[in-house]
Amino acid sequence: MVHGELLYEGKAKRIYATENPEIVLVQYKDSATAFNGKKFATIEGKGQLNNQITSLLFQELRASGIDSHFIEQIAKNEQLVKRVSVIPLEVVVRNVAAGSFSKRVGMEEGIRLKHPIVEFYYKDDALGDPLITEDHIDILGLASEEDVAVLKKNALQINKKLTGLFASAGIKLVDFKLEFGKDSKGQILLADEISPDTCRLWDEVSNAKLDKDVFRRELGSLTEAYKKILEKLEGLQNA
Amino acid sequence: MVHGELLYEGKAKRIYATENPEIVLVQYKDSATAFNGKKFATIEGKGQLNNQITSLLFQELRASGIDSHFIEQIAKNEQLVKRVSVIPLEVVVRNVAAGSFSKRVGMEEGIRLKHPIVEFYYKDDALGDPLITEDHIDILGLASEEDVAVLKKNALQINKKLTGLFASAGIKLVDFKLEFGKDSKGQILLADEISPDTCRLWDEVSNAKLDKDVFRRELGSLTEAYKKILEKLEGLQNA
Repeated sequence: MVHGELLYEGKAKRIYATENPEIVLVQYKDSATAFNGKKFATIEGKGQLNNQITSLLFQELRASGIDSHFIEQIAKNEQLVKRVSVIPLEVVVRNVAAGSFSKRVGMEEGIRLKHPIVEFYYKDDALGDPLITEDHIDILGLASEEDVAVLKKNALQINKKLTGLFASAGIKLVDFKLEFGKDSKGQILLADEISPDTCRLWDEVSNAKLDKDVFRRELGSLTEAYKKILEKLEGLQNA
Repeated sequence: MVHGELLYEGKAKRIYATENPEIVLVQYKDSATAFNGKKFATIEGKGQLNNQITSLLFQELRASGIDSHFIEQIAKNEQLVKRVSVIPLEVVVRNVAAGSFSKRVGMEEGIRLKHPIVEFYYKDDALGDPLITEDHIDILGLASEEDVAVLKKNALQINKKLTGLFASAGIKLVDFKLEFGKDSKGQILLADEISPDTCRLWDEVSNAKLDKDVFRRELGSLTEAYKKILEKLEGLQNA
């Protein structure tokens, strides 16, 4: 695959143009960042792991009727996706109290919520990606009321599918972050990635963390944790 | 009035029991605090001003059919109110961008929002009174979905009345914080206070701040600002 122009470079990925204006190439980088970029490192193999896990999960979602920007994986660290204009919201789904939720509301990590919840964060590094309400989204013109309803519905549907999938692999899906975009027809599509960088994944028995908290909180080898996730998911597919 | 047992002492008020178990006495203190108690001072006369302004506003609201816990003012710095069990939410209504909203979403202070919005903050000093969503309120069991709907409806109705009242006095009601409680019958009632401590009030022409930001940001004499508010509101009543 010939890489076209570098369209964007973020903390974890590079986006290249392709010959088709509707399609872009996503290259996963080996960098790890946390705390809004204040902590960072290069971790060899991380890009490949996230690309493979994301590709596998997008394929699983597609198989159960949930479409995304994903087209195909074309290399260990690269995938082709439909070009979308990203909605500047981080859509977070929570099943179990952890992280910023626990800190915000004073609920101990590990407590299962009585039902999954969806939160919206404003994608703005300078503001520190703040939690915002649906009224804020409206006032800032980030998405229409109808679009917000679609985001919530889709996020909860994705949660249902992923929770089941991870449970089959012996993993608890604690919470995760999604991003969505609009394609050239204005259709809302799941975008970005779904990986241990964007999910909290705990071993169902030991509650061992198998996600970016390994890096954030220095709990051991990040690639070992990510490899475990990939192997467990691949095990399901080969079963 | 004989003060009964001191039931509660907060940053700005003392609550005393009375002979009637359904009625408590609120005494407004001369203390000013900001930034979750990190900045504080004693300002002579402030308690009286807030008690008088709150009494006047609760009376105005009652006259237009919006009930509250307020019964009557019984001294310059004291009022009798119905005893309620407080819902642990700060209900904030915003008409114009300012304060924490401006910081959170990166919108310059002074920009009028395209419509008023209601925000909920969790009343918890240790957590710093964080912004929370309606899902958080549900998960934490702070109020039912029906109660939250009532709080929003009431807050917007109160905003309409107060915005008009302050406008008649040449004052812009930028934003304000309400608290609600439930009486012994389970009825939701507006409670706490409505004063320059809990509202952002700007002179309609000069945009001069006539509220607690004078203290927070050291912009001059707080009592002079609060006196101006009281005089303008009393002017309306005598007109």
